[in-house]
Amino acid sequence: MIDHIHLNEKEDALVILDQSVLPSRREYLTLRTEGEMWEAIRSLRVRGAPAIGIFAGFAVFVLSQRIEGELLPGLRRICGYLASSRPTAVNLTWALERMYAAAERGGRGALRAEAQAILEEDIATCRAIAENGLSLLRDGATVLTHCNAGPLATSRYGTALGPLILGTERGMTLHAYADETRPLLQGARLTAYELMNAGVDVTLICDDMASYVMRQGKIDAVMVGCDRIARNGDVANKIGTSGVAILARHYGIPFYVLGPGSTVDTACPDGDHVKIELRDGSEITDKYYAEPVAPRGVKTCNPAFDVTPADLITAIITEKGIHYPPYAF
Amino acid sequence: MIDHIHLNEKEDALVILDQSVLPSRREYLTLRTEGEMWEAIRSLRVRGAPAIGIFAGFAVFVLSQRIEGELLPGLRRICGYLASSRPTAVNLTWALERMYAAAERGGRGALRAEAQAILEEDIATCRAIAENGLSLLRDGATVLTHCNAGPLATSRYGTALGPLILGTERGMTLHAYADETRPLLQGARLTAYELMNAGVDVTLICDDMASYVMRQGKIDAVMVGCDRIARNGDVANKIGTSGVAILARHYGIPFYVLGPGSTVDTACPDGDHVKIELRDGSEITDKYYAEPVAPRGVKTCNPAFDVTPADLITAIITEKGIHYPPYAF
Repeated sequence: MIDHIHLNEKEDALVILDQSVLPSRREYLTLRTEGEMWEAIRSLRVRGAPAIGIFAGFAVFVLSQRIEGELLPGLRRICGYLASSRPTAVNLTWALERMYAAAERGGRGALRAEAQAILEEDIATCRAIAENGLSLLRDGATVLTHCNAGPLATSRYGTALGPLILGTERGMTLHAYADETRPLLQGARLTAYELMNAGVDVTLICDDMASYVMRQGKIDAVMVGCDRIARNGDVANKIGTSGVAILARHYGIPFYVLGPGSTVDTACPDGDHVKIELRDGSEITDKYYAEPVAPRGVKTCNPAFDVTPADLITAIITEKGIHYPPYAF
Repeated sequence: MIDHIHLNEKEDALVILDQSVLPSRREYLTLRTEGEMWEAIRSLRVRGAPAIGIFAGFAVFVLSQRIEGELLPGLRRICGYLASSRPTAVNLTWALERMYAAAERGGRGALRAEAQAILEEDIATCRAIAENGLSLLRDGATVLTHCNAGPLATSRYGTALGPLILGTERGMTLHAYADETRPLLQGARLTAYELMNAGVDVTLICDDMASYVMRQGKIDAVMVGCDRIARNGDVANKIGTSGVAILARHYGIPFYVLGPGSTVDTACPDGDHVKIELRDGSEITDKYYAEPVAPRGVKTCNPAFDVTPADLITAIITEKGIHYPPYAF
């Protein structure tokens, strides 16, 4: 079990750390109903592709205990409902299908073990990604990162933050610059929080300051996570990632993408085939603010992700190793 | 006189539109003491290099009326005090020195006319910049801008926003994307507000979305203002400008800098000689937010400006014309 997603003692509810109110409040929520679990994903109380997968596994286990009558039809309905909470999250559908398949094979008794397997596999995967990524950093290195691909987004270590956290555990001195990552501020709220907790020396900057710190020669490498990797190596990740990649190329700084091998979508030939989720403009104009910061009725454009073309990426790091182009996943 | 900086009827106080609370509140402040005027500059209630110069001219005129005894020593003290409010603002020192020189030549009676001359010269300069910049835009063009170089930052039209506003007045259809410009959000609070008021079709984005909209082929040109231009054409402007220039180069989009010829600092050989103002980190972590968005005690780096090297700039547009490299100012 991990602190930010775990079963309660009676194993009839799921307890999560509410990521949507971090870092100013550290609140745990006990989720018992499918409605509460659906809302937790939708409202980003649990977020990060691997974390959502782990959450979905244990959610199905908890909810399965209350299915009366035939297991599989009940499970099918629950999985369909949970999948609708964030339709573009690849890991959510993947975990739900895996839980359903486990029930088909082994019935009710197989569900807890399957959820636990999803968790343990993620722990091993993140550890291997951290090891592989760390091999690229010298003692004293400074890494710039965008958005949050840390322990909270996974099980432990995270993906992009794994090398920093693992290296620090081993006594290396590593530094980080965290882009705040507008509009949802995952860099400020989560990355800065997680790196400080892990003892990594972290400096928070606004997204438009990355060029300044790179020009000063402060950055040795960029490390970011990924939401989907196309067959040709194009990477969809949090909005702003492609801009950081272009800056890194301009300044001659290596740009690394870190993620589990399962992020490679072999059905997707290239980045042009990734559908980008457009979210509500109030995230730009109102959310988090004491009063609105833009004129009422202003037009906005709020894409949640962007595509970084393969030719801007130095290497993609998975649990299997460090992949350089041309990619053969 | 202009609405956002003007004398009251008795001409013994200066009235300004408080830019620090726009757009949610439209509040005018009546400033009578040198302490109030100093604070208005420091707290960005009046901002934008030309606007600060105009403000300083009328501020000196108002304060001069209360000097008892010898004029010049009193003026020297007032000018020194006001100059300390934002030491890196070139136009502030320039306007204060100009007012002092006018008093040396013509005494008390020369001060109101000198302040008025600073204002009228800025109106003519901005108009000429707008005309020159507009010659680069076709009907239907879309311009991306960063920070705020609009009417509020000057007298009328602004610098970077001048072509959009002038073209719209003439019946052209022009579109704009405004970077919100963290941490102080001048793009959201002021640029979006001014362009909407002027009838320009404007879309607000976060700074990390500029690469996304450029990749979609939506941007025909980037137009930004400038705080200081070095002899070699390097430009200091609001933090984030250099990043936008690198993106524009990557996507093959022309990148134009617009500003008065007085922004050229012939004493400054290149961008490495521009001292960058570092501001308090609470602007990143706390300002504008309902509750802090970053962990307490997080390290920050908050540069107010950055330097865009001349080789990333397509042309520099002043009231005198369109200057292409190599620059001979």
